[in-house]
Amino acid sequence: MKFLRYGPRGAEKPGVLDDNGDIRDLSGLIGDLSGEVLGNLDRFKDLDVASLPKVAGEPRLGACVAGTGKFMCIGLNYADHAEEAGMAVPSEPVLFMKATSAICGPNDPILIPRGSEKTDWEVELGVVIGKAAKYVTEAEALDHVAGYCVINDVSERGFQIERQGQWTKGKSCDNFGQMGPWLVTPDEAGDPQDLGMWLEVNGERVQDGSTRTMAYGVAHLVSYLSQFMTLHPGDVISTGTPPGVGMGFTPPRYLKAGDSVRLGIDGLGEQSQSCVADR
Amino acid sequence: MKFLRYGPRGAEKPGVLDDNGDIRDLSGLIGDLSGEVLGNLDRFKDLDVASLPKVAGEPRLGACVAGTGKFMCIGLNYADHAEEAGMAVPSEPVLFMKATSAICGPNDPILIPRGSEKTDWEVELGVVIGKAAKYVTEAEALDHVAGYCVINDVSERGFQIERQGQWTKGKSCDNFGQMGPWLVTPDEAGDPQDLGMWLEVNGERVQDGSTRTMAYGVAHLVSYLSQFMTLHPGDVISTGTPPGVGMGFTPPRYLKAGDSVRLGIDGLGEQSQSCVADR
Repeated sequence: MKFLRYGPRGAEKPGVLDDNGDIRDLSGLIGDLSGEVLGNLDRFKDLDVASLPKVAGEPRLGACVAGTGKFMCIGLNYADHAEEAGMAVPSEPVLFMKATSAICGPNDPILIPRGSEKTDWEVELGVVIGKAAKYVTEAEALDHVAGYCVINDVSERGFQIERQGQWTKGKSCDNFGQMGPWLVTPDEAGDPQDLGMWLEVNGERVQDGSTRTMAYGVAHLVSYLSQFMTLHPGDVISTGTPPGVGMGFTPPRYLKAGDSVRLGIDGLGEQSQSCVADR
Repeated sequence: MKFLRYGPRGAEKPGVLDDNGDIRDLSGLIGDLSGEVLGNLDRFKDLDVASLPKVAGEPRLGACVAGTGKFMCIGLNYADHAEEAGMAVPSEPVLFMKATSAICGPNDPILIPRGSEKTDWEVELGVVIGKAAKYVTEAEALDHVAGYCVINDVSERGFQIERQGQWTKGKSCDNFGQMGPWLVTPDEAGDPQDLGMWLEVNGERVQDGSTRTMAYGVAHLVSYLSQFMTLHPGDVISTGTPPGVGMGFTPPRYLKAGDSVRLGIDGLGEQSQSCVADR
C-alpha cells in the first residue's frame, strides 16, 4: 500500500492512494502516520480503500511520515559512488544526522540558505522504522521496517565540509529533507536492494543508479544502528546516494534559485522541487 | 523560576519548585514543558506557586524539557579543554548532533552499551530554546532562550572516534543525555558565562570548570546556529565541556557498571547517576 500525508504544512492528514491514484482520507481511522500506527500498517491490508472519502483536487503533500525523532543518514554507502570519489567503501557504515526540522514535503521548494554557494542534491532510499529496534540481528531487522520512501538529502557542501567539524551543519538546513510522496509498505516496494533511482536538474539526468550497488543493505543498516541506540517508530534511515551529485562534477555544479529538481525511485514515486532563495 | 518534569518515564508531568524546594504540580495549567509554553514562561512570574498542589514524596525526575526536536552539541568549546587536548579552539563553532532518543532524566542510570569499553562523561551547560530563531543576531539571540539546565553529554569514545565517520554514533546511545533537574529561567540563572561547573566519579572530582572559559558564548551559539537552520522551541544546545573528561587522563579512565557519577552547575542543580550495563 502507498500511504501519504496531505494538506497544509503542520496540519497534514493521513491518506492512502487508491487503485486510480486518487488520495483517500485516512483521518477517520488514524490520527497520523506516526508512532504505534507505523508498526501496525498490516491491519489495513484488507481495508476497502474505495470506501474511504476521496480527497478532491491536488492538495500539497507533506512528508510521508510524522513524528520522526531521528533522521539518520549513511555516508558513502554506494560502491560506485565511492569509486567515483576515489575513496574506499568504509569498513563499517558511516552515520551522521540531519535535523528533523529539515524534513518537508516531497514537492516543497529547496530553500537555498543565505550565504550558500554549494547547495547539492542526493537521491536516497529512505527506510521508515515501524517497530522499536534495539540490538536486533540482521535476520530480524526487516520486521522493524514500516516501509520505504524517496528522500532528497539536500546538502550544502561548504557548510558540510569547509565550516569546521561535523557534516550535520551542511545537512540540516530548513527544507533540506524532502520525504515522500509515499510511504510504500515492504510487500509492495519489493526487494529494497533492487530499485532503480534517478535525479534530474533542469531536465538533465545527473544521477542514475540502483540500490543494488549499496555497500551496506537495509537489513544490515537497521541491525547495525540498533547496536548503538534504540530505533523508534517514525525514525528514518536515509541510506546514501549513488554517483552523480553536483560536488562530483568537474567543475562542481550546484543549485541556484530558479533551478528545478526531479527525482524518483522505482515503485516509490517521484518528487519535484524548485529552488528558492531563503529569506 | 525552576521548572521540572516528574513522574514515570514517558508519563512525566510539569512542575515547578517552590521556595522550600518542594515540587508543585503545574499540570492544571499547562500540558507539558514543550512547544509554545517554553516561549511564554514569563506568564508564570506572578504565579502564587504555594497555591499549586504539592507533590508528595520524591518522584523520579524526567528531562526538564519535552518535545526536543534537535539535541545540538558544540565540540571543543572550552579554551582550557582545547589547551589540555593540545588542540586549537576551532575558528567557528563545531556542531554535532545527539539523538533525541538519548535524552533522559537527570538521575536516570548511565547505560553502558553492549561492547562499550570507553564510556565517558561531560558536564555541560544546556541552553533550551523558547522561541523559534532563524537568522537572528547575537544581540537578539538571548530573547529566544527559555532557560538553562545541566546536561551530561555521555560519550562512548570508541564508537565516537574508532568506528568510522562522524561523532554522532558515540553520542547517541540510550540514556546518554541526562537533562535537568531543572529548567532555570534566565532571570534566575544569572550570567550564563559565569557559572561554575563540576563532575565527580565515585566521589572524586574530575571536572571543575566555569562557563567563563567557553570559546563561543551562548548568545553567539544561538545566533550562529540560527544561520544554518531554524531553532524551534524545545531544541537544546549543549555547549561543550571543560577539562577533565576520562579520555583526557593518562591513562584514560572510563566508566564501568557500578560506578557513580555526580555533576552540577551553579544555580542549575545537580545530577546523580549510577552506571549499569545495558541488556
